Amino acid sequence: MNKIVLAQIDTIAGNIKYNSEKIQNCINKAKENNADLIIFPELALIGYPFGDIFMRHEAIIKKQLNALEEITSHTQNITVLLGFAEPTHDTNKKPFYNSVAVLKDGQIINIIRKRLLPNYGEFNDYRYFEPSEETSEIFEINGEKFGVLVCEDSFNDKSFFKNESIYNIDPIEELIKLKPDTLINCSCSPSRCAKEYIKNSLFSSIAKKYKVNYIYVNQAGYADNLCFDGSSRIYDKEGNITLRAKSFEEDFVITSSDGFKGIINKLPTGADKKIDKSNFDLNYRNDLDRTYKSIIFSIREYFKKNGFTKAVLGLSGGLDSSVCAVLLSDAIGKENVWGISMPTAITSKESKSDAQILANNLGINFQEIPLLEGLESLKKMLNGAFDKILTEKYTNPTTIENLQARLRATILWSISNEYKQMLPIATSDKSEAYIGYATVNGDMSGGFAPIADVTKTKLFALADFLNNSRPEKNVISSSILEKPPGAELKINPLTGKSVCAEEENMPYEFLDEIIWFVENNGFGFDDLINHKFYFETKHSVSNEQKNEWINKFFYKSKFAVYKWHIMPPSVIVDIHSINSAEYRQPIISQIF
Amino acid sequence: MNKIVLAQIDTIAGNIKYNSEKIQNCINKAKENNADLIIFPELALIGYPFGDIFMRHEAIIKKQLNALEEITSHTQNITVLLGFAEPTHDTNKKPFYNSVAVLKDGQIINIIRKRLLPNYGEFNDYRYFEPSEETSEIFEINGEKFGVLVCEDSFNDKSFFKNESIYNIDPIEELIKLKPDTLINCSCSPSRCAKEYIKNSLFSSIAKKYKVNYIYVNQAGYADNLCFDGSSRIYDKEGNITLRAKSFEEDFVITSSDGFKGIINKLPTGADKKIDKSNFDLNYRNDLDRTYKSIIFSIREYFKKNGFTKAVLGLSGGLDSSVCAVLLSDAIGKENVWGISMPTAITSKESKSDAQILANNLGINFQEIPLLEGLESLKKMLNGAFDKILTEKYTNPTTIENLQARLRATILWSISNEYKQMLPIATSDKSEAYIGYATVNGDMSGGFAPIADVTKTKLFALADFLNNSRPEKNVISSSILEKPPGAELKINPLTGKSVCAEEENMPYEFLDEIIWFVENNGFGFDDLINHKFYFETKHSVSNEQKNEWINKFFYKSKFAVYKWHIMPPSVIVDIHSINSAEYRQPIISQIF
Repeated sequence: MNKIVLAQIDTIAGNIKYNSEKIQNCINKAKENNADLIIFPELALIGYPFGDIFMRHEAIIKKQLNALEEITSHTQNITVLLGFAEPTHDTNKKPFYNSVAVLKDGQIINIIRKRLLPNYGEFNDYRYFEPSEETSEIFEINGEKFGVLVCEDSFNDKSFFKNESIYNIDPIEELIKLKPDTLINCSCSPSRCAKEYIKNSLFSSIAKKYKVNYIYVNQAGYADNLCFDGSSRIYDKEGNITLRAKSFEEDFVITSSDGFKGIINKLPTGADKKIDKSNFDLNYRNDLDRTYKSIIFSIREYFKKNGFTKAVLGLSGGLDSSVCAVLLSDAIGKENVWGISMPTAITSKESKSDAQILANNLGINFQEIPLLEGLESLKKMLNGAFDKILTEKYTNPTTIENLQARLRATILWSISNEYKQMLPIATSDKSEAYIGYATVNGDMSGGFAPIADVTKTKLFALADFLNNSRPEKNVISSSILEKPPGAELKINPLTGKSVCAEEENMPYEFLDEIIWFVENNGFGFDDLINHKFYFETKHSVSNEQKNEWINKFFYKSKFAVYKWHIMPPSVIVDIHSINSAEYRQPIISQIF
Repeated sequence: MNKIVLAQIDTIAGNIKYNSEKIQNCINKAKENNADLIIFPELALIGYPFGDIFMRHEAIIKKQLNALEEITSHTQNITVLLGFAEPTHDTNKKPFYNSVAVLKDGQIINIIRKRLLPNYGEFNDYRYFEPSEETSEIFEINGEKFGVLVCEDSFNDKSFFKNESIYNIDPIEELIKLKPDTLINCSCSPSRCAKEYIKNSLFSSIAKKYKVNYIYVNQAGYADNLCFDGSSRIYDKEGNITLRAKSFEEDFVITSSDGFKGIINKLPTGADKKIDKSNFDLNYRNDLDRTYKSIIFSIREYFKKNGFTKAVLGLSGGLDSSVCAVLLSDAIGKENVWGISMPTAITSKESKSDAQILANNLGINFQEIPLLEGLESLKKMLNGAFDKILTEKYTNPTTIENLQARLRATILWSISNEYKQMLPIATSDKSEAYIGYATVNGDMSGGFAPIADVTKTKLFALADFLNNSRPEKNVISSSILEKPPGAELKINPLTGKSVCAEEENMPYEFLDEIIWFVENNGFGFDDLINHKFYFETKHSVSNEQKNEWINKFFYKSKFAVYKWHIMPPSVIVDIHSINSAEYRQPIISQIF
């Protein structure tokens, strides 16, 4: 029988002092609890993801190896599994192995090296790491045998993945020949839509198939657009979960190999449900709680790690900024959020009062700064200039539309300049990012973009979810939820009302289904034309109209790619995204 | 004897129609000239670099294979070497091979697959491609034997790279056993400082060592921050160059295997010189002509491929904007460039007149738009707002400094909105990017950033170069070159003059040497402290001062990383850069 600790920590890439102190504290606490074994996440000592920082700053590696030596010297009577970047010292190889050191009684008694190196989506392991060709050894504590896997090494079970397996070896198949009682998976596995179901089914099926206990230790934290949800857990030899650490926060869980019992913390509601990629219809509904927790955890971590404590955002009375305000309020505290209403002559009374009511409901700081005067003076200034340098002035209404958005962003950045530690927030959403319906240096500008990977349809559902799940019900008024989304930047001369976004683009539900099938099913133009949209089951859509919308999507996307390249830091929540940490499309590419 | 064509073309990633038409035209022209063999660059059919576009848009691959079939059917009496992405059709492998098809008489007679897959810096081959494990076959035309290499396959000669070889096989060693007369290297090799010397020495030494002719065909174009210089060439069996295509433009070169004679086009002046990474002192001087040609070619290509014909930029009378104006003028024509002077109360008379004189010298469009009125109204507007939401107003001078920069960018974006096909230009340089000395939504904002990878020291040298090498001499006045760089955003109360950048930061020459050693030699804090700076050979620098500057560099860099993530598209010119196409550092990482 062994006492085992799952150290579900957060790390900071490159900050060896911070990471090693936290690791040492965990080891001390484990020793105080007479633990036999403590397990840290993948690459815990150096911090993951680290981008290319090794390449330019060799000193980090030296510091890391010194810290490993220091930590090793404090491992009397305990076994420590600690992830680190291990130099290969071989110019014919990549610079490092992605390794887990097994430390015991002041010695490194074993080193396990990662074999399967993911190099797709947000993963770039092969850029830095040499894959190990060898089956790792197992180690024993008090007669119990443990085998170690590093993250992806556990993701190639051939009976589970069937034809989708992308590697030709399964490290578990080989490791299992050494007859371990327990498999330990040290991971840094970012959370995203549809992933929890796969992880849970996979780990459970491995435990059951091989009749082994399965311990999964995952990082909890945020870095570089990725959110790590923790949710470390143990499955017994029948594949039943016996304990689960907290989701979206650090945790320190003590258990015993005599049954591996512990608290089974709740996952975000619905996160364990299967999501069918081939079906758009409301499939994201089970992802709302996880999306919510993922975003507020990311905001909190991003602010903390960069030294920000306050946020300022424009409140338009529309959906995007309202949802952002709620998320920020929950992430950093209502007293630290400043909502600024910046009306122009076009802004409706309803929008102004909706913004104010939302701020009141949330209890955040609120201020109205009318744009009128500043906008008029800028228009006058440009007018004079255009008079001289253009043959015709103000032929393009976009100029004034964008000017409003840019003036708003300028005010937000100015406020953030005045305050210390205050970050301006970019409130644009994923649907708009796809078709470039956001203004450069305007609503897409900010220090953080909380909902940049949430489509409009999902955002409406998220608003409902927020209205029903938070202690204060219905903070987002029905007036906000019921009005058609629009930037209120120009008036439709026919109706005398401001132009709504769907008039200019296409119905959001239709747009979001295009995005779903492009991202999750690799659909091209022809596939989309032949696809029966969920929108079509409720509305009559002519072939001409459908054709026009799909064309518009590709045409507008082409010119939006520039904006994807300069998007503020955000967090990936969907199955796939256009976030640059995951997906890169050259601005000059032409895919249509 | 064979007649051979080097088809040094430009391609557009994903636009199969455009690429295949261009390829077909080249083949037709080669046939008209009775050529036996025509050689295209690496991945010519699909276009390189393509980022992740395959992942989301499978239709491109189908189109590419259809195009390959179509092109193959037009290869009577000619052999064609055509780079394409070849599906592996194996889920245990990466999706594609990076291949060159050998087409002849309507058939694909052979396929050569790339063996060495670079996955560092700007290269991400292993993200998409499966390395070939097999030695490629050679093919024969009229009794002459040809072996084919795909770019990196030629970059692991062990005697040349000695201990720096990063792969354990050398495809040439194996290929040479099949006794080819000629090696052909199909490449997409981006141009950057110090690279031409290596390429020339390497290719020449391979030709000489194995007594083979060596043909190098490189792409000429720009995509995703990379500039491809073309400069295709042939070496004879003694390693002597016998012909060289043009640099930084497309070319179509016909030669014969009877001596491989042709025009040896000039390289940019100095580009073939060795650059010593361990020595900062003026080492970049030999890179000025190449830098110039690289930037203007990139601007031209970027504008053309994205449908822009005109540019607008702020002219401050300082070095950065002046150099940008010259580069733009040379790239897209002086009649298409608009220089806008936007003075405030702080702007000196000299700066105003320097801006105007530069515009006159260049013959570009010029307009002064004084900021005073707009700035006052914005200040007033913010003043009122701050009055209510801040306890103290305007405690932070940065607010007004940044407001000026943001107002200027707003004017430039407004002008670009009014005009069609006009791109606003971000004029900030590499030294400033490193320490975050550029304003978000201000001078770092734009549709393209021509000098984002040029340090200030190199920029002064580039200005000199421009003054002496262009037909119109001294377009950048000595007044611009002699004044200390500074943003003219605030007044030093002690001197009554605007604060110069070196007062706020450190001498640019010192800063640029830090950048040189961090980028090219992996220097950390301790290495820099122990390093004898070139600046120190000319000026007395106390240890305290040196320590302060080096500290400031790391401290400011940490907060600049956010800005690196949202930088506009640019072009990499230095040996290394912080451009996101090459280098990624998470915003939350802490390396110091």
